[in-house]
Amino acid sequence: MTDQYNNYYAGKTVVITGGAGFIGSNLAMELVRLGASVSLIDNMMTGHGGNLANLSAIRDLVTLNVSDVRDEMSLEYFIRNGDVVFNLAGQTSHMDSMADPFTDLKINTEAQISLLESCRRHNPSARIVFASTRQIYGRPSELPVTEEHRLEPVDANGINKMAGEWYHVLYHRVYGLKTTSLRLTNTYGPRMRIKDARQTFLGIWIKSTVQHGEFEVWGGEQLRDYNYVTDVTHAFLLAAAEDAAIGKIYNLGHHEVVSLAETAKALVGVAKTGTYRVCPFPKERKSIDIGSFYSSYEKIKSELGWVPRVKLSEGLSRTLDYYADGGLERYL
Amino acid sequence: MTDQYNNYYAGKTVVITGGAGFIGSNLAMELVRLGASVSLIDNMMTGHGGNLANLSAIRDLVTLNVSDVRDEMSLEYFIRNGDVVFNLAGQTSHMDSMADPFTDLKINTEAQISLLESCRRHNPSARIVFASTRQIYGRPSELPVTEEHRLEPVDANGINKMAGEWYHVLYHRVYGLKTTSLRLTNTYGPRMRIKDARQTFLGIWIKSTVQHGEFEVWGGEQLRDYNYVTDVTHAFLLAAAEDAAIGKIYNLGHHEVVSLAETAKALVGVAKTGTYRVCPFPKERKSIDIGSFYSSYEKIKSELGWVPRVKLSEGLSRTLDYYADGGLERYL
Repeated sequence: MTDQYNNYYAGKTVVITGGAGFIGSNLAMELVRLGASVSLIDNMMTGHGGNLANLSAIRDLVTLNVSDVRDEMSLEYFIRNGDVVFNLAGQTSHMDSMADPFTDLKINTEAQISLLESCRRHNPSARIVFASTRQIYGRPSELPVTEEHRLEPVDANGINKMAGEWYHVLYHRVYGLKTTSLRLTNTYGPRMRIKDARQTFLGIWIKSTVQHGEFEVWGGEQLRDYNYVTDVTHAFLLAAAEDAAIGKIYNLGHHEVVSLAETAKALVGVAKTGTYRVCPFPKERKSIDIGSFYSSYEKIKSELGWVPRVKLSEGLSRTLDYYADGGLERYL
Repeated sequence: MTDQYNNYYAGKTVVITGGAGFIGSNLAMELVRLGASVSLIDNMMTGHGGNLANLSAIRDLVTLNVSDVRDEMSLEYFIRNGDVVFNLAGQTSHMDSMADPFTDLKINTEAQISLLESCRRHNPSARIVFASTRQIYGRPSELPVTEEHRLEPVDANGINKMAGEWYHVLYHRVYGLKTTSLRLTNTYGPRMRIKDARQTFLGIWIKSTVQHGEFEVWGGEQLRDYNYVTDVTHAFLLAAAEDAAIGKIYNLGHHEVVSLAETAKALVGVAKTGTYRVCPFPKERKSIDIGSFYSSYEKIKSELGWVPRVKLSEGLSRTLDYYADGGLERYL
């Protein structure tokens, strides 16, 4: 497929924080294909997305630096020469954020300030694209959720990501940094964390299905939209290449809106194995249940021409193939 | 004056974080008058509001503990037995927050999580009232600003206070803590920091006027509302005493809406001394200029019956008297 950024990345120096993680590694593979020089920064923290298995196809074609974004010296070394910074390092688990809001704050807010300060001081003209999340909207008051929707996060992760995103807006407005934020919805695909639900509930659903097991669907009626990972990496590549995206915030999303129960049905249908059981939403998680959520992606469609290309059934099929083809054990 | 909480505080144990500061010390004086047992926690950090001069009238009637809210052990000791926690510790300087967003984050977000965690673990039934700020709204898109207005902070302080406020909402929704947040507008009165503009620009205006000097008015056309400090302490006392306030966020504000130039004129008029000079808004601060701001206090008026009682001219007069009557040097 031809994209408008196809020549943009050849010869460019690109830094990806959280580069050994799910989206970061998929993005790195695309960038290698496009001829960019790619450095991945990842702290490889246990319980997060960083996994060497994600990089097996490009291990010799990229630089992997194991360090934390809050390591100022190390970060400066990479930032100084970066044309583009894809800022994906983050903590994504809602439960972890409630169990330890301090660590979540350090990763999702403090580390973001570190990165922005480093760019401001050492490379103010770099393009920066930040992985934000629909989680900051909280429980929607109207659907689909546009970028104008109020931010009412329902967990510590949402609060800290909201603050991290606003720092990207602030550093654009005050210092002129060329930042863009993408508010991701549920992203799935090869290289996602499937060991547990820390990235998305789909992770354990997929693991269970590949293992021919049974998984639980909590509630079941709640509507969701999902993006296959290549649609998400496409959005990142577009956002960094287009001047129209500077200083902006965009939702991602999908026109296929399906209930959790329908999603489960689609998954076991595509897999032709596995089962699921619909059960009530656990009481202790009720306070962070956001009900139905799906977003409007009209803004990024009209301004950057982005639309999701991969249908849910197709994306689920490719994802299951990835883990079924001998990849599963590297993710357990 | 008789207030509905007049009997509520007699015999109650009350903790005030930031208790040696401007609003904290005024609140402590009221609480002592109402018969409460009052502990003040203040880190007395240079450049902040803590000042022993603020406590001269009640020094032997309250407990002052010099410690940081992030000192878990120390905080627990006071929180464990508190019926009410007035959570006023914060960093208020916009310029300082931009120069060092990390320290601002620690004080205005991380320390708030510490306090809430301490309440959750050791005293989940305490009433907690948080001093939030109009700063989190950023540049208003419509006036007067209601609580429904979008939050678009224009500086690091606004982002971090926004996150701190949302933690109070979160800990109410998830853990049932009895929190209330008051979004303060410009507060002035005796015991405010006048050494510099770290609390509000009014500080240096008042200092200059008491010293018969000249102060600068940047812009001049921007509209503002102001609350005299006893109206603000009244709101805190109401919020902690009324069950209707639990889990809520309220704006404070004033029906007198005046431009900066009119404010300056009123100040030197009341003082019968001092002069001011209107000059352009400094270019380097333009990006954090929010234009006109005044808020709607209809919500707290209808739910708690709060209205501001002190007119601007009266409040300025009392403030000038405080600093002119031999109090100035303790604040320089």
